[in-house]
Amino acid sequence: MVYFRQLFDSTSSTYTYLLGDAHAHAAVMIDPVAQHCNLYLSLLDEHKLKLDLILETHVHADHISGAHCLREQTGARVAMGKDCNASCADIQLRGDEMLTFGAEKVLVLATPGHTPGSLSYLWRERLFTGDALLIGGCGRTDFQGGDAGALYDSITHKIWPLAGETLVYPGHDYRQHEVSSVAQERRTNPRLAGKSRDEFIALMNQLELPAPRMLQAAVAANRHCGSERSHAA
Amino acid sequence: MVYFRQLFDSTSSTYTYLLGDAHAHAAVMIDPVAQHCNLYLSLLDEHKLKLDLILETHVHADHISGAHCLREQTGARVAMGKDCNASCADIQLRGDEMLTFGAEKVLVLATPGHTPGSLSYLWRERLFTGDALLIGGCGRTDFQGGDAGALYDSITHKIWPLAGETLVYPGHDYRQHEVSSVAQERRTNPRLAGKSRDEFIALMNQLELPAPRMLQAAVAANRHCGSERSHAA
Repeated sequence: MVYFRQLFDSTSSTYTYLLGDAHAHAAVMIDPVAQHCNLYLSLLDEHKLKLDLILETHVHADHISGAHCLREQTGARVAMGKDCNASCADIQLRGDEMLTFGAEKVLVLATPGHTPGSLSYLWRERLFTGDALLIGGCGRTDFQGGDAGALYDSITHKIWPLAGETLVYPGHDYRQHEVSSVAQERRTNPRLAGKSRDEFIALMNQLELPAPRMLQAAVAANRHCGSERSHAA
Repeated sequence: MVYFRQLFDSTSSTYTYLLGDAHAHAAVMIDPVAQHCNLYLSLLDEHKLKLDLILETHVHADHISGAHCLREQTGARVAMGKDCNASCADIQLRGDEMLTFGAEKVLVLATPGHTPGSLSYLWRERLFTGDALLIGGCGRTDFQGGDAGALYDSITHKIWPLAGETLVYPGHDYRQHEVSSVAQERRTNPRLAGKSRDEFIALMNQLELPAPRMLQAAVAANRHCGSERSHAA
């Protein structure tokens, strides 16, 4: 029996996911947000789940990661992409690894483009895409080593080939969407559907988005897994 | 290990679902469409699944059901709402029954309103809502014994209380949406979010939709589980 929760940080519109193997009392959190650390601990406690792994999809630029506080409180290991250059992580991932918690498996997919170290995680029929693929959108590629061509390749080569019914759970949503499917995004995502690689790159290069308000502080802290101390240092 | 497919009939924008217990080689189909019967049989064969049950969410008014041809070819039993007045069904459901296939369970929810016999089916974390709740919409209530007040009660009393992460798989979609969640619909469904029962009834009563093209032929045939012979008789 599995346990699944989708949690939302309204300040940064970030989705955090809690995955549990209820038999084995083992859990994983994806992209926790520091300010909700106590809520996560309560949820784990309530459902008798021991946190094994904290998975980051990338170094976030819009919120402080809850990885540090969760690791301090639970002893869980933190896993991130090797190319995130975050030496705080206990496990450095490259993609194609199979992670386990209880009897459950999580496949790591390297999906660079929003950042060089961006990863997606596939658990059963659910794909957690971070800021690579969003519902009806995708992550920006204009800072933090972003690369529109790499993002196009990640989405079209790694995500589109999955079964159409695979559920897409993004790292953010700004329009109250919670879930999509690979088939729906393949067919309807306005940034990608029917677009060539060159058209996608041109589109991404002309977005002219404002810089995230928390960019400097968040990236600095999140290279240390969201440790405020390291952040202040 | 489970198997899940979401199939689409582009003529009527109908979604059909195939649910399988791969270990037990047992399967269920929800709302099959007659013209795709051979495709369904191929899929079952390909995945070594024996069809145990055919579940209808209601008597459809826009396509001929594939229940009859699938029953003829596989021996599967057909289950429908008792209030559909379809004596062709092997199993007459009232709601709250637990159906099984292999080691899997499907909970029947009575969700009348679009039609008096409308049912939804809950399998694991997936809710198949037929034409009760659609993504960003709901079924019409202006024919076939439709009742807007009953539909409001079905959605708000039977569906909204489910876990927010419960996946909503509708019977139709006309805008290429494939999946939603209970939380997303609760918050954003324009027909229901923030609407009182009276406001919903008023809204539904002023829609002035055209009659479905296949209404007479489809309903007549589908009261016989989509048998063309009974339909012609």
